[in-house]
This record gives sequence, structure tokens and C-alpha cells, in this order.
Amino acid sequence: MSSHFEKNVPRAFLLVELAERLQISMKGDPEISIHGINTLENAGPGELSFLTSKRYAPLVPHCRAAALLVPPDFSHLDFPLLISEQPYLCLARAAQLFFQSPSLPHGIHPTACMGDSVALGSGTSIGPLVHIGNNTIIGTGTVIHGGCHIGSDVQIGEDCLIHPNVTILDRCRLGNRVIVQSGTVIGSDGFGFAQDDQGHHVKIPQVGIVQIDDDVEIGANCTVDRATFGRTWIQRGTKIDNLVQIAHNVTVGEHSILIAQVGVSGSTRIGRHVILAGQAGIVGHIEIGDRARVGAQSGVNRSVKEGEDVLGSPALPHKEYLRCAAAFRHLPRFRDELRDLIARVRELEDQLSKE
Amino acid sequence: MSSHFEKNVPRAFLLVELAERLQISMKGDPEISIHGINTLENAGPGELSFLTSKRYAPLVPHCRAAALLVPPDFSHLDFPLLISEQPYLCLARAAQLFFQSPSLPHGIHPTACMGDSVALGSGTSIGPLVHIGNNTIIGTGTVIHGGCHIGSDVQIGEDCLIHPNVTILDRCRLGNRVIVQSGTVIGSDGFGFAQDDQGHHVKIPQVGIVQIDDDVEIGANCTVDRATFGRTWIQRGTKIDNLVQIAHNVTVGEHSILIAQVGVSGSTRIGRHVILAGQAGIVGHIEIGDRARVGAQSGVNRSVKEGEDVLGSPALPHKEYLRCAAAFRHLPRFRDELRDLIARVRELEDQLSKE
Amino acid sequence: MSSHFEKNVPRAFLLVELAERLQISMKGDPEISIHGINTLENAGPGELSFLTSKRYAPLVPHCRAAALLVPPDFSHLDFPLLISEQPYLCLARAAQLFFQSPSLPHGIHPTACMGDSVALGSGTSIGPLVHIGNNTIIGTGTVIHGGCHIGSDVQIGEDCLIHPNVTILDRCRLGNRVIVQSGTVIGSDGFGFAQDDQGHHVKIPQVGIVQIDDDVEIGANCTVDRATFGRTWIQRGTKIDNLVQIAHNVTVGEHSILIAQVGVSGSTRIGRHVILAGQAGIVGHIEIGDRARVGAQSGVNRSVKEGEDVLGSPALPHKEYLRCAAAFRHLPRFRDELRDLIARVRELEDQLSKE
Repeated sequence: MSSHFEKNVPRAFLLVELAERLQISMKGDPEISIHGINTLENAGPGELSFLTSKRYAPLVPHCRAAALLVPPDFSHLDFPLLISEQPYLCLARAAQLFFQSPSLPHGIHPTACMGDSVALGSGTSIGPLVHIGNNTIIGTGTVIHGGCHIGSDVQIGEDCLIHPNVTILDRCRLGNRVIVQSGTVIGSDGFGFAQDDQGHHVKIPQVGIVQIDDDVEIGANCTVDRATFGRTWIQRGTKIDNLVQIAHNVTVGEHSILIAQVGVSGSTRIGRHVILAGQAGIVGHIEIGDRARVGAQSGVNRSVKEGEDVLGSPALPHKEYLRCAAAFRHLPRFRDELRDLIARVRELEDQLSKE
Repeated sequence: MSSHFEKNVPRAFLLVELAERLQISMKGDPEISIHGINTLENAGPGELSFLTSKRYAPLVPHCRAAALLVPPDFSHLDFPLLISEQPYLCLARAAQLFFQSPSLPHGIHPTACMGDSVALGSGTSIGPLVHIGNNTIIGTGTVIHGGCHIGSDVQIGEDCLIHPNVTILDRCRLGNRVIVQSGTVIGSDGFGFAQDDQGHHVKIPQVGIVQIDDDVEIGANCTVDRATFGRTWIQRGTKIDNLVQIAHNVTVGEHSILIAQVGVSGSTRIGRHVILAGQAGIVGHIEIGDRARVGAQSGVNRSVKEGEDVLGSPALPHKEYLRCAAAFRHLPRFRDELRDLIARVRELEDQLSKE
Repeated sequence: MSSHFEKNVPRAFLLVELAERLQISMKGDPEISIHGINTLENAGPGELSFLTSKRYAPLVPHCRAAALLVPPDFSHLDFPLLISEQPYLCLARAAQLFFQSPSLPHGIHPTACMGDSVALGSGTSIGPLVHIGNNTIIGTGTVIHGGCHIGSDVQIGEDCLIHPNVTILDRCRLGNRVIVQSGTVIGSDGFGFAQDDQGHHVKIPQVGIVQIDDDVEIGANCTVDRATFGRTWIQRGTKIDNLVQIAHNVTVGEHSILIAQVGVSGSTRIGRHVILAGQAGIVGHIEIGDRARVGAQSGVNRSVKEGEDVLGSPALPHKEYLRCAAAFRHLPRFRDELRDLIARVRELEDQLSKE
């Protein structure tokens, strides 16, 4: 069983090759060989490092890297350089050249447990102790790591990466290049109950699905509930951090960002390019407009307009909240000033009434 | 192995049969055949739809459903109707007629790993790659889905539904008709440490159990810690959403509701019919009285009386909090008014002192 | 397969043996045999109980325990006693004598799936349906319970206890005596993306690791992300509760406590002996000094000094926050007093201008 796994082969590039692949300019010996990327502090010979903020410039003289990726303001450095207007974006792309996600050999591990009529594309990899239910379709190049439970009638697209111990339940659909980190549950029942006369909670069967579109990434130990009817829908390019809760019938638009421990309640619609910062909570049945930004720990209990920034619990417009929070800190002084004023006004009133 | 799984068979009912089973009145052709339920927008021929709020009435003329479930105020609609004073509750019951939870064939999947002296009732289903420890008892009709880890000396009652990849640890006890969604951990160690002279944390072994009573549902990726001694106890009919934390020795009374991402600290007692809204946090060693309601993101640091509604962090009585939060928004104005008043009072004082 | 598991054998000690092992004094018959520990209410004959707070003293007359562990102020009790200046710490140590973590027989369960070149120390136990990747090293006495997925090139030290259904991903390193509760994910990708010109998020491969030092305990369903480069680092003796999020490149110092549902954002450094209370959120790239304490639900958006206590969102010094929160509750009154003062000052101004 052990020969079933391969090791990643490290890659190396010449500096000039990196410049060409990243479509950026370079300075210094084009033949320098680069075999990895690391931070200014930790990069060793043969590694590329990067400087994306002035804050770290003092580390450059001590850096042992073979070359640096820098913005144009640092093109004067006496170092072999890759120079980009968008060094952070280039760093992402360069790192993608060097580092590959942990993979598996193609084929089905002998300990995997396959249902009836499972359709696997070419070049798929099914890891050890995986279960895949009946009639599930898995696209070309997709990797399902060990311990995952994929239900029946599930559709997973091409080149997806499903990390170990993920649960994807019946009938859910994933697009192409979707990444799901470990421990996440997709397609758990939405939280829907009706109350009877005794105040007992009667379960409303959750018969919808979860649909996750192309290029979405979902972090570890998240929960994405299936819709009551219809679908819970995460649209293209959206990235979700760890421990995030997406309730039934929520829609998250394209290219949005949901930071760790966010919770979105049922039927809410999040727009495109939205940012929900960590631990924010969004009530149900509202709309968060495109490009809106919700601050960390905010509690959003009303719809937010396109491009609006909100903060606080309950959430207010960002700048207004900052003014209120600043004033909050002076509340004890206000209380004292008020008490003092009340006494002084009474004194004035007394004086005037005596006259 | 693949023939081991069955597919759900869709059911169909005549409109009159539905009216009888739900014990409500009907209008229109009693012989209409209904084979499913869907929303006003998405229902097609042969499906029942529902109108539980006036908000959605404009969708009715475009609805292609075979019949509608409505409250009496909509009994005038020119549509085949099921009419109920409690349409939402009837919807839950009707949906339960049509949709069944994903099931497994009876018996033990060949890849399951069974301990010593496991006692299985009749009609139990143990899915693929499940582990069940020694001396565990599982009641009639209970379904344990794939990838679950059930410890030793566990007792699970009848007709329970344990979704894939659930962990239920040694000696925990579940009643009848309990539902546990994927990724949830029942019986993890409570967080109990004593400090020694060096400020090191010495683990207090957690030797109690978790007891979960009949008709409880626990969502996905929750954690319910075992008691230090005795039991952590979730009582009958309580429903818990996703990513909820229940600490050691907590008691949650009957028919309560805990929304996603709530955290309840150790030894706190939650009453009956309580509602804890999303992301609320409850400190340890307090009591939340029966029928109390705690608002979203509230931080409750003192006991709450029976029937009391609280909101905010720290939590205040609901209406009081709303007044304070409304005033919070005017803090910058208060600050300006105070500054202005101070100047004016000084001016008045100056004038009077000159006279 | 079933004989593969052993049952814990209950232990018994004489009262005098317990006193010797705990290095504390005793009172009463030294030959009393003790076979377990329980609460004042639930202890039965042959069990040790404990009184660590005056609050529970009224329960003592009804207690059926064989002996009590008490602080010196209760040494007058007419009961067989163990007497300690630190009864809570002694309780932890006594309970460790009686109760052992659920174990497994030594060796590899036949359903476990082992990679290439796995190095197991003596006396390790690998449970059912576990997967261990290539080149992973597991130290002497370590127990990996059922359903765990341990990646490739992982290093786990001696006497660790990895509960069922834990995920530890490639190249992560655990020290000795580390405990990880069920459902936790160690080594998920950090949340790192660069934006391109269209506002699309380009993944930055996360190529670092997670390092967890000796005597750390991590609760259930936590997530500890691997570093972008370098390591996410949990240092010696730190204890982490359930559902906690540790982002990439975070360092948590020695002997700190992180309560349930805390979130720590990327690259933040938490000091030694720090306490982060439940649901607190810490922004990225800051420092929390040694022995600092962060209150429940706090939102910390700036560095916190050594020994500082903070509370609130945004967090303020603890005492200052309490004063502000107390004043918050009087905001509606302040508003009314302000309104009243404004009218009275105007009246005074009018009177003076008439004179």
C-alpha cells in the first residue's frame, strides 16, 4: 500500500525564467537558479525572497536569499531582483510555480469504499478510507484526500482539491478548481423548525442543496447548510476562512471574502467583492450590497448598500461607528461633566430667582 | 459493495389525502396528485407550494404549483388550496410526508469496524468505515452513517440519525430520535485545569459523560464536552444549530433553541423553551430561566430570570439595551452639546459674577 | 478484531497512600480504601470527594463519600480528610491517579492504513481506520485513536494522545505529551490571497508548518493553520479550548489559556501565561504581552502590554471599560438630562439678556 504515494519533486527556475513567467522585469545575473521562496529572515542560498513593505527593508542587508522580488521603489537595491508593480500578487504566482498542493497518485486507493455508478474523470485520485456514495460524479484531475465522506448524487467538477476528512453530503454540487479544507461539512441540514401548540419544535425537512461555483475555496471546519428548498449558493471565486457558518438558502456573490468565524443567517444575500471580517454576524433575510465591507465582530441587522462600510454591533456606517466608539471611551467624563453642569445650572437658577 | 445502498422512492398523495393527514381543510379538486413541495417561485406541476406571509402574495399569480398551503386569510385564492391556521407547522409536517432523511440499508456495512459485545437493535444501519467500540448499545431503527466514530460503552436509543463523520466518545448516552449532524463531537474533554506554583496548567481528568435526551437535534461541527464528574445534559426536544460550544456540566432544558456559534460556559444551567440567538456567549455557573431569550452576539455575565429578554454585551434587558444602543449613536452629538453647554454655563457664571 | 481492545482497570488506594502520593496531610483512618472521586452530591461509599469553596459546605453533612479533600480551613470537619493548601490542584493530581485516558492496545489496528517508511516508537497504538502518511514519525507511547488522518512527513513526539477523527496535515510537528481532541485540524492552509486587477483572489501557497510543543492540549473542532512560510507555533504547556481559530504564522507563548471560540488572526504573537477568554477576537500582526488577560468577546485591535487586562470591543483597559459600560447603561438618562440642561441654559440666557 505504501508505494501508492508519490513525493513532490522540487522545482527550480532560472531568475530569467521567473521574470518571463511572471511577465515582470529583472536585474542581475539571469542564470541564477532559484529552487524555492522564503521570508527575508529565513531565505537561504538558492531561494527567492520578497519585500512588499518598507517596514521590512532593514532586514535586506542580512538576507541570504539568491534574489528578491520587490516593487519599483526598491529597484536600486544591490541584489539580484525581480521587479513588479504588484509584488504581493507576483509572490502568489511565483509561489504557485514552486509549491504544489499535496497530491495523491491517480486512481482509487484500495481502502476507499465506492458506491454504485460512481463516475470518475481521468486523472482523479481517491485517497485512503474515503467513502463515495452512489451516482456521484467526480471530474478530471480532482483529488479527494483520505477520510472524506462524499454522499450520493454529488457532482464535483475538475481539478478540485478536497482535503482529508471533509464531508460533502447528498446531491451537493461543486464547480471546477474548488478547494475544501479539512473538517468542513457541506450540505448539513439547515436549521428549520416550526413550533406546535406545546412549543415543541417540528423539523422542516431540508430538501435543497448546496451549490459551490468555480474557484471557490472553503477553509477548515466550516459548515455550509443545504437549502430548505432550492439551493445555498457560493458563487465563483469567493474565499472562505475557517469555522465559518453559512446557513440555509444564503447566497454569497462572486469574489467575496469571509474571514474566520463569520456567521451568515438564513436566506441572506451577500453581494460580489464583499468582505466580511472575522467573527462578524449577519442576520437572516437581508442583503449585503456589492463591494460592501463589514468590520470584525460586527452585528449586521439591516441591509447594507453597495460599497458601504459598516462596523459595530449593531453595525453603523464605519466612520460614524469610529466616532461613537471614541466618544464611548469618554462616557465616565461626560457623566461627571453632566453632574457638574446640573449643579452649576441649579446654582445659576437659584441666583437669578433670588434677584 | 455498491448494491448495499438503496435509493429513496418518491411518494405521491392526493390533495384530499394530504388534507386528511394534516387534519386541515381543503378547496378544489380533491383528486389532484401531489408528489413534492417547493417554493412559490420554483414549484412545478404536481408540486405543493405554500404562502406563509403576505410578503410573497405577489408571486402567487405566476406560481405553477398544483396546489397551495395557505392560512385562512388567503382562502379566497382561485387555486386548489390546503388551508391551515398554522401553515408553517403544516408545511413542516407535509414536508415530512414527502422527504425522508438519507438512509442506509439495514445491517452492518462490510467496511465497518465493530468492537466487542456491541448490541444492535433490529433494523439498525451501520455505514461504511464506521468504528463502534466495545459494549456499545444501539437501538432499533438507528442509522449511523459513514465515517462515524462511536466509542466504547456508548448507549444510543431508537430511531436516531447520526450523519457522516460524527464522533461520539466513550460512555455518552443518546435517547431516542436524536439527530446529530456531521462533524460534531460529543464527549470531548471539558476544559478543566488547576494551576501549580509555576503557573503550569495541570489537567483535571474529565470523567463524566454527556447525556442527550429524546428528540434533540445537534447541528454540524458542534462540540459538547463531557462533564468533569456527572453529566453534561441536553434535555428533550432541544435543537442546536452549527458550531455551537457546550462546556462541561452544562444543562440545557427541554425544547430550547441554540442558534449557530453560541457558546455556553461550564456548569451553566439553561432552562426550558429558552432561545439563545447566534454568537451569544454565556459565562459559567449561572442560570438562564425558562422561556428567556438572549439576543444575537449578547454576552451574558449574570443569571437571567424566567421569561426575561436580554441583549447586548454585557447583556441588559432587551428594551433597555435598545434605548442605550439608540443613544450610543448620538454620542458624538452629546459630546458637542456638552462642550457647548460648558462654555455657555461658564459665560453665564461670568456674567452673574460681574453683576 | 474485538479482542484488540482492553478495558481500563479501576484502581484503588488507601487514604494514607493518597496523602503520600499527593504530599499532603491526612486525618482519620489511614486504611480507608478509595477507588474513585466524585462530587459532594454524587460521591458514594469508597469514593473521595472534595470541597474547594465555602459555597458547597452545606452539602457536606449529606455527603456519603469515604473521605474529603479540603483546604486547611475545613480541617475541623468530622470526616476522614486529605488536607491541602491547594485543594483544586490536588484534586487534579488525585483524579489523574484514578482515571486514565481512554487507551488502545499497543500496535497497529488491522484496519489502519499505513504509508511508506512510517517510524513508530515502542508502545505506540494506532487505532481503527486511521491513515498515516509516508515518512511520518510517531514517538513511544503515543496513542492515535480511530479515524485520525495523519499526513506525510509529520513528527509526533512521545506519550501524545490524539483523540478520534483528528486531522494532522503534512510536515506538522508535535512535541511530547500533546493532547488533541476530536475533530481538530492542524495544518490547514492559512488564509492568504493576493488580489489581481479584476479583484480576483489569487491563492498564496501556504508552505510553512504548524509546530506544537510539549504538554500542549488543543480542544475539539479547532483549526490551526500552517504558516505561509516558516511556522505557526503553539509553545509548551498552553491549553486551548474548543472551536478556536489560530491563523497562519501566529505564535502562542508558553502556559497560555485560550477559551472556546477565540480567534487569533495572522502573524499575531501571544505571550506567556496569557488568558484569552471565550469568543475574543485578536487582529493580525500585533503582540499580546506576557500575563495579559483579554476578557470574553473582546475585540483586540492594538498590541497589549505585559500584564495588562483588557475588555470590550474595541478593547480598553479592563477597569476603564467597566466604567464606560456602567455609564453606557445610563445613556438614555444622560440624553434626557442634556436636553433638559439645554432648555434651562437657554432660559437662563434669555433671562440675563432681558435684564
